[in-house]
Amino acid sequence: MTKLKKGSRCTICKAKGEKEKAVVFLPHHRLALCKKHFVEWFEKRVEKTIKEFKMFSKKDRILVAVSGGKDSLSLWNALNNLGYEADGFYIDLGIDQYSEDSKKLSIEFSKKIGRNLYIVDLKEEIASIPVINSSTNRPACSACGTVKRYYMNKYAKQLGYNIIATGHNLDDEAAVLFGNTLHWDINYLKKQYPVLREEGGFIRKVKPLCKITEKESALYAFFNNIEYIEYECPFSEGASSIEYKELLSQLEEKHPGTKLKFYADFLRKMYPILKEYERKEQEEIKICKICGEPSFNDICSVCRLKGIIEKASTNN
Amino acid sequence: MTKLKKGSRCTICKAKGEKEKAVVFLPHHRLALCKKHFVEWFEKRVEKTIKEFKMFSKKDRILVAVSGGKDSLSLWNALNNLGYEADGFYIDLGIDQYSEDSKKLSIEFSKKIGRNLYIVDLKEEIASIPVINSSTNRPACSACGTVKRYYMNKYAKQLGYNIIATGHNLDDEAAVLFGNTLHWDINYLKKQYPVLREEGGFIRKVKPLCKITEKESALYAFFNNIEYIEYECPFSEGASSIEYKELLSQLEEKHPGTKLKFYADFLRKMYPILKEYERKEQEEIKICKICGEPSFNDICSVCRLKGIIEKASTNN
Repeated sequence: MTKLKKGSRCTICKAKGEKEKAVVFLPHHRLALCKKHFVEWFEKRVEKTIKEFKMFSKKDRILVAVSGGKDSLSLWNALNNLGYEADGFYIDLGIDQYSEDSKKLSIEFSKKIGRNLYIVDLKEEIASIPVINSSTNRPACSACGTVKRYYMNKYAKQLGYNIIATGHNLDDEAAVLFGNTLHWDINYLKKQYPVLREEGGFIRKVKPLCKITEKESALYAFFNNIEYIEYECPFSEGASSIEYKELLSQLEEKHPGTKLKFYADFLRKMYPILKEYERKEQEEIKICKICGEPSFNDICSVCRLKGIIEKASTNN
Repeated sequence: MTKLKKGSRCTICKAKGEKEKAVVFLPHHRLALCKKHFVEWFEKRVEKTIKEFKMFSKKDRILVAVSGGKDSLSLWNALNNLGYEADGFYIDLGIDQYSEDSKKLSIEFSKKIGRNLYIVDLKEEIASIPVINSSTNRPACSACGTVKRYYMNKYAKQLGYNIIATGHNLDDEAAVLFGNTLHWDINYLKKQYPVLREEGGFIRKVKPLCKITEKESALYAFFNNIEYIEYECPFSEGASSIEYKELLSQLEEKHPGTKLKFYADFLRKMYPILKEYERKEQEEIKICKICGEPSFNDICSVCRLKGIIEKASTNN
């Protein structure tokens, strides 16, 4: 958002013969925009991404994974404005003040736009993130991702939704891609697509903000007066994805558009090769012998996690 | 090479019950070594790389691409010490003082080890690099690479060598891989292997230092009293590969071994997938209609370059 020259005019207003001042500069798109046209641009870009990757249509019932942060609330707002049937799903992770604040903001936002927000309390389902974290050696974000994916999928099916939409933005996706590329982790790389299709008990998962940067999403929230939780989850500190984000931002600073090109070129050029390869190496989806949810192993990762937590609590 | 603690002992000497002080610390290999054992380690590692990738054997006739820099001279020295039949090939690029200095050092080194050094003068073959550079819009390093590959291949065949060995080190290979990955340049990625096999008029090209860092190669040259040109080619300034090297070094500093893992994991996990894919998309090797050398087009890139230079000189 830097480098906006004083007195710059909005590119779209200028084309219409109007003279509105620009408030945003998007160097990688070579666009200077006023507030109104930025919001329009943002929603059009989300719509374009939904169509490009055939994510869903107006007939689908969408459940947005809401964290209370700028990305999930901006996504929910945009989908609502674009006329999609999108409700929210909030998982109370039990992370003290962070969870209390983000839950409150999520509830307030759902009331503001008049859509349902389903709330699930993690400690009633399995255990809070702090308890899970102290019971396992896994990085907090990894265990948290596992349980969120599990309960989102389970409840979306129960509630009759056929699409889960998450607020992952371009910075998130590019950083994860960067990490998976540094380690050439083929199993993760071949799943790095903004649509994970429905199969074997998993419902379709989509990332409509995958071509929207973190800054664009924050600005969209700001212009729409969306109140969101502004501080990071206390467990995310030191996550390697933050290091990769910084590195990519260094490159972006020098060469605007690097992040988008890195991510979009992967999808366009590398992903098809990996998908072709995957056909031969397809993992079989089973049914967890304990809970009956879909799993790549006989026992799903959440049931295994439950076992570990129970063992840890017995030992203490 | 940082973080060598004062008074550290050589790991290998220690294992033998000797007490030699370490002068080098290789954090990504967790080795502290004395001068003698570093030189031994270096040559063993080169030998291991040659065997790992089946580069060549003692029966082959090897032509080393000599630039006068630390990498090519260290490579030549190591191959000679390891008992391979390796002569040198120097291309005088006509870059003023840089070429004069590097040629002198290359000739002196060839005399020291008592091996042949063939010298080709680029301005007699096509034009000097400064002239080529002012005639085309291509980045200097790109045109230079093209002509070097062409004349190396042509003369190696004429002189009866069946292997071309270049001094590309791990830092070079990781930086190029990084750039090709940022752009997901599949055509380059699928050729990013330390052995390019002989086919259709191209002789085999190998990179025996691909798992040796820049610092290790400089240190090997230093310990062997190899005088090499210490300043960079004046045309290399601002090359994107330098930016990528810095970025990877940042990561390496925090996580020793990142560069090696990034490169080696690519070869192990990603390259086989790309090679499989390549089989279907194989480029056909033709014969250049002008010079008769192998080419991927009807006219090879050097003959095309000649045409451009002639046109530019007629216009001036």
